Amino acid sequence: MPIVRIDLSNTHSAEVVQAIGDVIYDAMVSVASVPADDRFQIVSRHADDELIYPRQGYLGVTYTKSIVFIQVTWNAGRTIEVKQGFYRAVADGIHARTGIRKEDVWISLVDVNRVDWSFGNGEMQYAPPP
Amino acid sequence: MPIVRIDLSNTHSAEVVQAIGDVIYDAMVSVASVPADDRFQIVSRHADDELIYPRQGYLGVTYTKSIVFIQVTWNAGRTIEVKQGFYRAVADGIHARTGIRKEDVWISLVDVNRVDWSFGNGEMQYAPPP
Amino acid sequence: MPIVRIDLSNTHSAEVVQAIGDVIYDAMVSVASVPADDRFQIVSRHADDELIYPRQGYLGVTYTKSIVFIQVTWNAGRTIEVKQGFYRAVADGIHARTGIRKEDVWISLVDVNRVDWSFGNGEMQYAPPP
Repeated sequence: MPIVRIDLSNTHSAEVVQAIGDVIYDAMVSVASVPADDRFQIVSRHADDELIYPRQGYLGVTYTKSIVFIQVTWNAGRTIEVKQGFYRAVADGIHARTGIRKEDVWISLVDVNRVDWSFGNGEMQYAPPP
Repeated sequence: MPIVRIDLSNTHSAEVVQAIGDVIYDAMVSVASVPADDRFQIVSRHADDELIYPRQGYLGVTYTKSIVFIQVTWNAGRTIEVKQGFYRAVADGIHARTGIRKEDVWISLVDVNRVDWSFGNGEMQYAPPP
Repeated sequence: MPIVRIDLSNTHSAEVVQAIGDVIYDAMVSVASVPADDRFQIVSRHADDELIYPRQGYLGVTYTKSIVFIQVTWNAGRTIEVKQGFYRAVADGIHARTGIRKEDVWISLVDVNRVDWSFGNGEMQYAPPP
């Protein structure tokens, strides 16, 4: 159910891209109660001038061209603690697996509802019982 | 008002891309009370490793490289039945027009409010009456 | 905190793309109480057939291939008047800086919550006080 948009530099290797996707999925399952196999991710590679961040940083965090923008749309209901744990697991995991700075891991969440998904076949798989 | 993001393989032909956009628009107008001419769609073509789905499938649905991710941002207020009808119309229509498997039609909805749009000119066209 | 997606034709120059990003950021800070340096923007350039708009226009507004789709995800709480002022400032500014028609400036907003962001480092920088 989550759909994850990953926007990053076209200079990242295919292996790094793959590792980032793996880490996000693993964090969802282990920290945020996302079901196994519920992995849907869209990667977009960008030229340098297409990923814009403040040169002087924001809130004490600084960024480089290696910045990874992650935007997750998923079902509402997760607690603040779960979201915090998810942020931590994603940043820690990406850093551990790829060497990308934890500061360059940027995450945005969008909460929606269970009826807002079709996982194929034209069906609303999470429809409420009639 | 809906803005539709369509993310799909760069191996789909221009004709298939056009047909997918047509089907989504037709389904919106016929099933989901979207006004005529309210058609705004952003297509992004992707390399194979940029569209990630579970190899073993999810909830009994399996996917191929032909997967089409559709994310619709539109106004809140549509019923479950309307959303179900929309999913069905999009999957059926894409399959009928392009031969893409219905299982490969993946849809995410994001509900927003009437004041969250400017259709050009710097105006809030759906502003409430003063 | 806002994340801004800017989707536009690959025929726009790098200077125009830069100016559009500048204008959106300036409008956020001056009109919509976005903090200084809170500038995060993702640009995606598109082929002609990837940006779809109604040929006959919508609500009296007509569009050209120069259309700029702007989708902003930011925190809920802004008033209708602020959103109206933001639309106006973005369209006016883009027109003044680039010559793009104000009709071709298309904006979608998505409201989320303060806990829905990590600006890097795996932290929830806007976490509520414990």
